[in-house]
Amino acid sequence: MKAKRVEESITEQVHIIMPSHISGTNRLFGGQLLAWIDEVSAVTARRHCEHDVTTAAIDNLQFKAGVYINNIIVLVGRVTYVGKTSMEIRVDTYVEDHLSGTRNVVNRAYLVMVAIDENEKPIEVPRLILETESEHAEWEAGIRRRQLRSDRRKEGY
Amino acid sequence: MKAKRVEESITEQVHIIMPSHISGTNRLFGGQLLAWIDEVSAVTARRHCEHDVTTAAIDNLQFKAGVYINNIIVLVGRVTYVGKTSMEIRVDTYVEDHLSGTRNVVNRAYLVMVAIDENEKPIEVPRLILETESEHAEWEAGIRRRQLRSDRRKEGY
Amino acid sequence: MKAKRVEESITEQVHIIMPSHISGTNRLFGGQLLAWIDEVSAVTARRHCEHDVTTAAIDNLQFKAGVYINNIIVLVGRVTYVGKTSMEIRVDTYVEDHLSGTRNVVNRAYLVMVAIDENEKPIEVPRLILETESEHAEWEAGIRRRQLRSDRRKEGY
Amino acid sequence: MKAKRVEESITEQVHIIMPSHISGTNRLFGGQLLAWIDEVSAVTARRHCEHDVTTAAIDNLQFKAGVYINNIIVLVGRVTYVGKTSMEIRVDTYVEDHLSGTRNVVNRAYLVMVAIDENEKPIEVPRLILETESEHAEWEAGIRRRQLRSDRRKEGY
Amino acid sequence: MKAKRVEESITEQVHIIMPSHISGTNRLFGGQLLAWIDEVSAVTARRHCEHDVTTAAIDNLQFKAGVYINNIIVLVGRVTYVGKTSMEIRVDTYVEDHLSGTRNVVNRAYLVMVAIDENEKPIEVPRLILETESEHAEWEAGIRRRQLRSDRRKEGY
Amino acid sequence: MKAKRVEESITEQVHIIMPSHISGTNRLFGGQLLAWIDEVSAVTARRHCEHDVTTAAIDNLQFKAGVYINNIIVLVGRVTYVGKTSMEIRVDTYVEDHLSGTRNVVNRAYLVMVAIDENEKPIEVPRLILETESEHAEWEAGIRRRQLRSDRRKEGY
Repeated sequence: MKAKRVEESITEQVHIIMPSHISGTNRLFGGQLLAWIDEVSAVTARRHCEHDVTTAAIDNLQFKAGVYINNIIVLVGRVTYVGKTSMEIRVDTYVEDHLSGTRNVVNRAYLVMVAIDENEKPIEVPRLILETESEHAEWEAGIRRRQLRSDRRKEGY
Repeated sequence: MKAKRVEESITEQVHIIMPSHISGTNRLFGGQLLAWIDEVSAVTARRHCEHDVTTAAIDNLQFKAGVYINNIIVLVGRVTYVGKTSMEIRVDTYVEDHLSGTRNVVNRAYLVMVAIDENEKPIEVPRLILETESEHAEWEAGIRRRQLRSDRRKEGY
Repeated sequence: MKAKRVEESITEQVHIIMPSHISGTNRLFGGQLLAWIDEVSAVTARRHCEHDVTTAAIDNLQFKAGVYINNIIVLVGRVTYVGKTSMEIRVDTYVEDHLSGTRNVVNRAYLVMVAIDENEKPIEVPRLILETESEHAEWEAGIRRRQLRSDRRKEGY
Repeated sequence: MKAKRVEESITEQVHIIMPSHISGTNRLFGGQLLAWIDEVSAVTARRHCEHDVTTAAIDNLQFKAGVYINNIIVLVGRVTYVGKTSMEIRVDTYVEDHLSGTRNVVNRAYLVMVAIDENEKPIEVPRLILETESEHAEWEAGIRRRQLRSDRRKEGY
Repeated sequence: MKAKRVEESITEQVHIIMPSHISGTNRLFGGQLLAWIDEVSAVTARRHCEHDVTTAAIDNLQFKAGVYINNIIVLVGRVTYVGKTSMEIRVDTYVEDHLSGTRNVVNRAYLVMVAIDENEKPIEVPRLILETESEHAEWEAGIRRRQLRSDRRKEGY
Repeated sequence: MKAKRVEESITEQVHIIMPSHISGTNRLFGGQLLAWIDEVSAVTARRHCEHDVTTAAIDNLQFKAGVYINNIIVLVGRVTYVGKTSMEIRVDTYVEDHLSGTRNVVNRAYLVMVAIDENEKPIEVPRLILETESEHAEWEAGIRRRQLRSDRRKEGY
């Protein structure tokens, strides 16, 4: 199984916020954003492992800005860490400024995706080639997040 | 502002899993489940605070079982901890066994919801009256989860 | 086949009314409400009979109040009468007052659901144990509604 | 206000049944059909009264045949009776045979729609010109259905 | 295989424009209209050929008027030309005036649909019986549009 | 108004094909693809002109390959030609091979988008800076497509 670079599986998705995406309070419905984040994460993970995947966990999901009707939002997914059969994916969501073209962060989520074979059994994933300093830093932080998830599971929360 | 018991805002939602909820791999699409969790969490929080709310964070979301077409799933939301303007909501998702009627846990998520006034500014929420041992235990764990979220924010992940 | 109490299959579903649920006239789209009523009815019936079900009839569906964006609505389903292979389900829809927490009735619908086996053939359903006075009253009214449906079918309208 | 013929407001809608319309049991989800019936009824009523309308009641809704994936279904709405501010609309649903082109009845529903002005107050509707024998028969049956609805309302079921 | 008249496959679909159909700019989302056009075209083609069909091409799609919330729109599909295994379908979209009942053209689209058998292989379609002058004119124009499509394909645009 | 390079507005969107995107014949519903193409085109155009846009025309839309459940599809939009107030956008749709990562072309569409101000009046758009040979070739072809659209409009088809 050939190791892969982070860049090979980077995934991007844009949306225009329409009324069907809006909650009763006139903002983007959080649940809709979560659905898009999960889809982007799944494509990123599938591009890395070349198998089907299933979502095992999501954490550190913080909404830093409201998103409103007619905004353009951009979701970008990238692999940050890989275990034997699992991949940690970071999905960043930005809202694009209509005039200046600048992007403001809406949300940064980390998801754990597991590669599965046709019988839905976990299957090994390719190693990740780290090329930049920030990719190395994310890998180190990914190890700490993995430990944190394991600790919480033991404590039952 | 009158304090409220946990029971006053408990919220339940059922669904039959139809093809429109399914991902390409024949399981419940994770993003669809997240959308329902967010909606249940918002109703729970609004019942407690009697104001509109917005989702600030989701964490500790682990998928413990697959959900398949024609399954009945049940989501139950309850308040576990309240800060000055925020509420921590736990949403448990179960899949009901078609024959025995037993419920198996699919997922347990914790969400932080913030009460907002008509100008989308945070607004104070009612205190929570803890009645049972498990409600007290959740409150204590809620304090630790709050600290954890704050720590992670400082470390930037 | 074990008889079952009404309480064992009571089913609850909440929704926040979002723009995607709204008709062109700014109220909850009646068709959306009907879709939720049918889903709640199906879950109630499946919990009673522990088989798949199909909708055979809906009647006495009256809309008593408009529902508007950002309202919380609650649907509650319960078994009111059972025949050999069919169950009559009552689904009550309420809109919750944002401030007082009181519930106002939006709609009361009666649906006839038929239990079906894996070949889509009708199959016998458990008897219903009536415990309260209102459950007995609903059963009696259920017999009259059943007669009414049969009369109308004969008259062809 | 000019009286109108039945034919002037007849409304037709077709659909191909896709997976997003299907319930967990592989048939057309009853709730989806109800949503389409309500929409066709609203268009029929609006064409007759030239105002917005709201659904007041649905009855005598019987599902006579299952509808499956890839079937073509056709909904036809027509005015059968008018009161001062209300219109009774009949919506017939057919499934088209893929080969012979014949139509089999799936469902016949009667809906009561009320014309409303811009303040959501009921407003008078045009009289109905009856031209055929079947239109006269439907009008007579419409009077009986109206009485029946009123009787049931008094009895509270 | 029996030849068929144009009238035998004419297909009509109505919709009330609701918030879920609207883009961020408060008009009917173009993509939603395209989805309805494709569905009407598929039903028209299936009624003509009595087989499944797949969309091969769409062209000459021009939006002549905006469509807004609560408008009634009507889509009408008819066969204009048939090749050996393909059918050209014209879908006209109108917006109905709420008061006068007149219809204004929103869009006229031509689609090429191919009849397919159960192995997704193209299959021969019935000849088209032309009865009116406008049907003959459309057939002639259909030949020119077919040539145009073929020319463009050769030039690669 | 500053001229812009093609690269500044290139837009990408990915999707996993789920049952809710599928037609009755088990392929991606053409109408769903058209909806995504229109959304990608609108984001591309808005990034170029920094205003709201509306779809004026779509043409040369040919479906070269079927897309099936669980496939990953990728849509890429780019500006190919600009008039005074209009922009021609090309949207390429690819299906990604699950194993090899290669992309096969599903469809190439050209859309004409018009920039509009807050009163829905057309407004001038930035000039396009052409940098590569293929961008120049597309511009030349864009002029011919524009002429073709104008010719067809005169001939009325």
